[in-house]
Order: sequence, then structure tokens, then C-alpha cells
Amino acid sequence: MSEHVVLTLIKQADKAISTEAFDTLMDFYADDAVLVVQPGQIARGKPQIKEAFVAIAKHFKSTLTVTQGAAHVIEGADTALVIMETHLHIAETAKPITRRATYVFQRDDTRGWLCTVDNSYGTDLLDAE
Amino acid sequence: MSEHVVLTLIKQADKAISTEAFDTLMDFYADDAVLVVQPGQIARGKPQIKEAFVAIAKHFKSTLTVTQGAAHVIEGADTALVIMETHLHIAETAKPITRRATYVFQRDDTRGWLCTVDNSYGTDLLDAE
Repeated sequence: MSEHVVLTLIKQADKAISTEAFDTLMDFYADDAVLVVQPGQIARGKPQIKEAFVAIAKHFKSTLTVTQGAAHVIEGADTALVIMETHLHIAETAKPITRRATYVFQRDDTRGWLCTVDNSYGTDLLDAE
Repeated sequence: MSEHVVLTLIKQADKAISTEAFDTLMDFYADDAVLVVQPGQIARGKPQIKEAFVAIAKHFKSTLTVTQGAAHVIEGADTALVIMETHLHIAETAKPITRRATYVFQRDDTRGWLCTVDNSYGTDLLDAE
């Protein structure tokens, strides 16, 4: 089975994060997308999302790279739910940090699949109650 | 903060499941929604989803009721990602089975919020590799 197009897009987005190509990265998001920066902190819309990624890169002293592990894409109506292992590699830790992420994509008639909800914390958000 | 409308809809849907009102239940889904029946098994579209709920009810000898625990709704663009504890109460177990579910809703201009992806297994799908 060929890879779902949103997995290809996520790989391209991960590359943009790793190379700090944040303008390119914004092309993967819907205009009014949301990013869970950390439990309790949301960035809404491209300007805030870009600002959050710039701050994250700075926090990790530009050593962050992101790679994918196992993934499922569940497509229904014009949306897709992605369940994915996301590995965060940073200079200060020997092993990558692995999260079980959840992403929502929506198919736009002209722009194709765009990320509308980027929640790398997955269901672990429930632990932050 | 008032409850997000999709949480109200999920409560109504849970009541429909518990009372086996499956035609009412289908009103909560987009026409081409998908339901993860179990890891590796997908029901696509209302006829298959309804059939799956009928089979699930039969499997539990009509003793299944569903209630909600903690929940987060992350709304972006015209979609919403719901992260939720779902409690499944069945006659044969003293304690409910709790899952960390993930649901995707999409806002339809005429019909309001509709469920497009119903994945009660959440990120546990990654354990079924």
C-alpha cells in the first residue's frame, strides 16, 4: 500500500522544522490551524504558530530535529486523523524523546491537505488535568 | 467556560448508544465518516457504522452503556480534535473499561458539527502494529 499523502507532507514538515525553514513550514497549515505548544498552551493561526516554532528552536539552541516512527492515518469525510510516533532529537539528550502524536488534516479543494490541529502530546493531554 | 458543543453532542451520542437508538446515533456522523471498530477493522459510511454498532450491542448482550470522563477539545479551522476518556460499562465486568479516545469533528455549514473520524482506541492503535 502506498503511503498516505499526509504522511509525505508530515515528513516534509519535519524537514522544515529541522532546517528551521519556518515560512515553508507554514505552507502545511490551514490559516486558522492550532498548535498545542505544551499542555495548556495553544498557538492559533500562522503568525502565532510560526512564533512558537521560532521559540522552540531557540529553546533547543537550534539542535532539534524531528523524525517519524510508526503511524496510522484514518481518513473520513474530508478529514484525516493521524496517530503517530514522533521522535524529537535534541543535542542535550542521548536518546530521542518519543511522543504519541495526534494530527488532524483537512482536504482543501484548491490547496490539498492542510494541518488544522497539531497536537504532538496526543492523549497524554489528559494527564495534565 | 461553557462546554464545547461537540462535548454535548458526544453525550447525546453516548445516550443513543446506551439506548440502542442507532438511527438517532447516525445523525451525529458525516455521511462518509469512519469508525475504528477495533484495531485493523474500519467501518466506513453510515450503513457500515450502524451495522458495527448493532453487532457491538449484540456482542455485549445489550448491556453496554457509555459515559465520558475528562476531555479536551482542540478546535482549529473548521475541525475539532477531541481527546477524551471514554468509559464502557458492560454487565460482565464490575469496573468500566476506560479508553483514551480520539474523535474528529468537522463543521458543516448546514448540519453543524459532525463526527468524521471515531477512534475510541486513541494512540493505543500504535500498540497493535
